[in-house]
Amino acid sequence: MKNDGLLIVFSGPSGAGKDTILKRLLETNADYRLSVSATTRAPREGEVDGKDYHFITKEKFQNMLKNDELLESAEYCGNCYGTPSGPIRSWQAEGHDVILEIEVQGGSQIKTKCPDCVSIFILPPSMEVLEQRLRGRGTEADEVIQKRMMRAQKEIEEAVHYDYCVINDTVEKAVDEINQIICAEKHKVYRNADFIERMLNHA
Amino acid sequence: MKNDGLLIVFSGPSGAGKDTILKRLLETNADYRLSVSATTRAPREGEVDGKDYHFITKEKFQNMLKNDELLESAEYCGNCYGTPSGPIRSWQAEGHDVILEIEVQGGSQIKTKCPDCVSIFILPPSMEVLEQRLRGRGTEADEVIQKRMMRAQKEIEEAVHYDYCVINDTVEKAVDEINQIICAEKHKVYRNADFIERMLNHA
Repeated sequence: MKNDGLLIVFSGPSGAGKDTILKRLLETNADYRLSVSATTRAPREGEVDGKDYHFITKEKFQNMLKNDELLESAEYCGNCYGTPSGPIRSWQAEGHDVILEIEVQGGSQIKTKCPDCVSIFILPPSMEVLEQRLRGRGTEADEVIQKRMMRAQKEIEEAVHYDYCVINDTVEKAVDEINQIICAEKHKVYRNADFIERMLNHA
Repeated sequence: MKNDGLLIVFSGPSGAGKDTILKRLLETNADYRLSVSATTRAPREGEVDGKDYHFITKEKFQNMLKNDELLESAEYCGNCYGTPSGPIRSWQAEGHDVILEIEVQGGSQIKTKCPDCVSIFILPPSMEVLEQRLRGRGTEADEVIQKRMMRAQKEIEEAVHYDYCVINDTVEKAVDEINQIICAEKHKVYRNADFIERMLNHA
């Protein structure tokens, strides 16, 4: 049942622990690849081109848009951001599952362009735990925390558009459940139609 | 994410190893329940009522049909067979996943009545291996083996109507993959809509 790799779209509110989960997923499975966004903004101190972002010119970005080489794109504070489709397609063709972390609007654009992608929404165990995690990060003012909680609430409302949800109770459990979702998706009959046809024709 | 248990429909050609897989699944997970068919045929030597089949009268069977208490039914050699929905619904309500082994025609009836069921088709690694397994069983005549192979071919053609397929290469691997499919299905967003709503409303 060797097939193209999957495109896995990952979203969830800030504080749900997406980054920690992704890091662990990539550490524990050498077959996964992480999609890197392209941006027209300047690199910040310490950011590495091709790792944190593909840093490209506005002209290049416009060309990619025009040539339909971006799975999604957005503008933020005057800078453009987007997901290049080229590397994703190449990795998938090599059988690698590609993971793409993105906020809910971008996730929705990708689902429209790639209905075959597997979308997973990371949830906190509860809104109380989410607030604790956001507060635990540092010395943010109450007002900032409240704004983030309102944003998280809006993001979680979008979870209904995702295929799967995973509660980040413990990182190990969440990573294990995500791996099981990916395994299950590879066993979908429609992804194995070729295998079944070959089996029947070689009889 | 505590919900109703799943209804898992299991099919596959004779020789694919469904029975061994099911036995191992039930041995290794005390939460699974196995659906028992009802039949109007007389018990054979050693068969236990309620374990091998629910042995019932024709009148009782007709009543169950009339009252829509069977998820599927079929007649074979003048005897009626069917899947009682009552025990399945009760187990599901208690949170147990219910496994139902059935041939492809029955599987199709169940998918129509219970679109929410998870259907899994067990495949042999190849038609050659299937033939070896069928021959290995005993001293069947070539003609019998050929008939079974033709039937298997027809059954495998129906695999396209199932949600998932699992290749029975080794029993351990197949059982592991089935458990992962069941885990993944429990994380489908639509099965957790209540949880997400409660989370948002308790914010």
